[in-house]
Amino acid sequence: MGYKIAVLGATGAVGREMINVLAEYQIPVDELKLLASARSAGQTVPFAGKEIVVEEAKEDSFEGLDFVLGAVQNPMAVKFAPAIVKSGAVFIDNSSAFRQDPDVPLVVPEINGADAFAHKGIIANPNCSTIITMVAVGALAKLSPIETMVASTYQAVSGAGQGGLEELSRQLDDLHEGRAPEAKTFPAQIAMNVIPYIGSYKGNGYTTEEMKMQNEGRKILHLPDLRVTCTCVRVPVMRSHSISVTLRTKEKISVDQAKAAIAAFPGAALMPADADRDWPTPLDTSGQDTVYVGRIREDLTDEKGLTLWCCGDQVRKGAASNAVQILKLLTE
Amino acid sequence: MGYKIAVLGATGAVGREMINVLAEYQIPVDELKLLASARSAGQTVPFAGKEIVVEEAKEDSFEGLDFVLGAVQNPMAVKFAPAIVKSGAVFIDNSSAFRQDPDVPLVVPEINGADAFAHKGIIANPNCSTIITMVAVGALAKLSPIETMVASTYQAVSGAGQGGLEELSRQLDDLHEGRAPEAKTFPAQIAMNVIPYIGSYKGNGYTTEEMKMQNEGRKILHLPDLRVTCTCVRVPVMRSHSISVTLRTKEKISVDQAKAAIAAFPGAALMPADADRDWPTPLDTSGQDTVYVGRIREDLTDEKGLTLWCCGDQVRKGAASNAVQILKLLTE
Repeated sequence: MGYKIAVLGATGAVGREMINVLAEYQIPVDELKLLASARSAGQTVPFAGKEIVVEEAKEDSFEGLDFVLGAVQNPMAVKFAPAIVKSGAVFIDNSSAFRQDPDVPLVVPEINGADAFAHKGIIANPNCSTIITMVAVGALAKLSPIETMVASTYQAVSGAGQGGLEELSRQLDDLHEGRAPEAKTFPAQIAMNVIPYIGSYKGNGYTTEEMKMQNEGRKILHLPDLRVTCTCVRVPVMRSHSISVTLRTKEKISVDQAKAAIAAFPGAALMPADADRDWPTPLDTSGQDTVYVGRIREDLTDEKGLTLWCCGDQVRKGAASNAVQILKLLTE
Repeated sequence: MGYKIAVLGATGAVGREMINVLAEYQIPVDELKLLASARSAGQTVPFAGKEIVVEEAKEDSFEGLDFVLGAVQNPMAVKFAPAIVKSGAVFIDNSSAFRQDPDVPLVVPEINGADAFAHKGIIANPNCSTIITMVAVGALAKLSPIETMVASTYQAVSGAGQGGLEELSRQLDDLHEGRAPEAKTFPAQIAMNVIPYIGSYKGNGYTTEEMKMQNEGRKILHLPDLRVTCTCVRVPVMRSHSISVTLRTKEKISVDQAKAAIAAFPGAALMPADADRDWPTPLDTSGQDTVYVGRIREDLTDEKGLTLWCCGDQVRKGAASNAVQILKLLTE
């Protein structure tokens, strides 16, 4: 009585984590198919006590499946989406290819889980920084519509996949051994540095990554007029993203109201619920699914503003866990 | 025909850099006195081809001096200020002890250099992140008064002095050798992490470090109504601070006007004046005095807003060089 599930892009950082989370969430899996490029085919990955051989993804790989969890880049997601939809499987896609498609729900289960049920074969998993920020501010948006947000991110290298994780490790080794670090995955040295450029420019001076916070935030929160000024910055941290957010709501929300709402919101945790400090750090929040929120205080520039700090694991809640949570929602 | 100058706190990260900058700026020095705690007395420091012996700072250390450059913490600055002023020397103090004193000018030479001449024996050197941000936005404030700023900082470990520099190096070594890093100088592990807490809380949810951006910004820019929401975050970078700033001015400033004004402003450099990218990183800007500004674009949340990114060396322009520039201003 389980499901037939494929992970498309099973050997990357997010794909591997999806496999872990399927097991951890005890999703009833009858068959797990691991798909990747021809280059990765033949590798084996352990799941539920067995070694599963990774197969090359092909148009006919999806017959008979219930769900496909996508952890591939946009071109591969676009290439395989028609075959997945035609097979009758639901494609829960972590790429950004379909996020703005009006026929594709863009879902953070704690916020707009109901949207998932209106799918036409594809459900999009939002951008990682956007998911983490939305879980942090979702409780506030329910108290009063958010009108504007100014966000500056502190994004872990895991956001660039396995290559990002390897690059930071390699550069730190290089520095330790007295070698000049080489930048391959990132556009500058990331070890002992920060890089205020993620994605690519699109004409208004913002990067593609920065515009996701506004454009995906609008769709997730059902706030089509939300305006967001975002600055996305890569920092030499392995897995968890952090975001400094200043937001203005239609009606004033007090700091105490905000704290109570965030503490009660599923998926979020208010610091210091069980800590002696009110500021989460990326290291505190890696390897789990909760978005930790702290430093909640009045925005000194606007009487209807609040400012806060949040951290969450980019690979998990920012990608793999959110996708598996969407799958779980559809099976309950 | 030179000056008799002392550096108080000569063996710390900022004090050492003040000595370097005095030589580099070719300040005519007749006598350089290096003062520190009893613990550091007896060390020697090279200057102008000689080895100078560090002496213990005492009340009678300042007789006959023209300038005292202060690179000590508040209690020591407060302790020695009366003796310095009584001796007739001008005390250019990098601590925060006197910055809000109405009798003490708070000076960034490129912005309010004229204020320095109204001193009554003490001139305060501003907070490091504040100096770097002010040089970046000073040109805009001259076009139209800045009303509000939302700033998120990415502050190097040098801001915590020699102990901060040593802690990051030691923790990276620990991680490399498989040892658990120990946090002594910072309130959590800084290697592979970021810490959104610098200074201490003062009651409104902001830290002392965060309120400096507003309170010192008001005094430097002569804008007593300036409102600033600041989030100060320590990042695992050695020397240069970066700041993501979104600001609203009284009248609209276009992106092109802003770029032209910043490019023409002394002490600031617009990226990419001589680079193929418009985003400076801390590594690009360490070991020099210019504040690099990039990513200048419209604030999507306010039609009179702009957002930008700036980086500058915390030990130099954020501390030592700004102090020596104040001294230079008074001698010209």
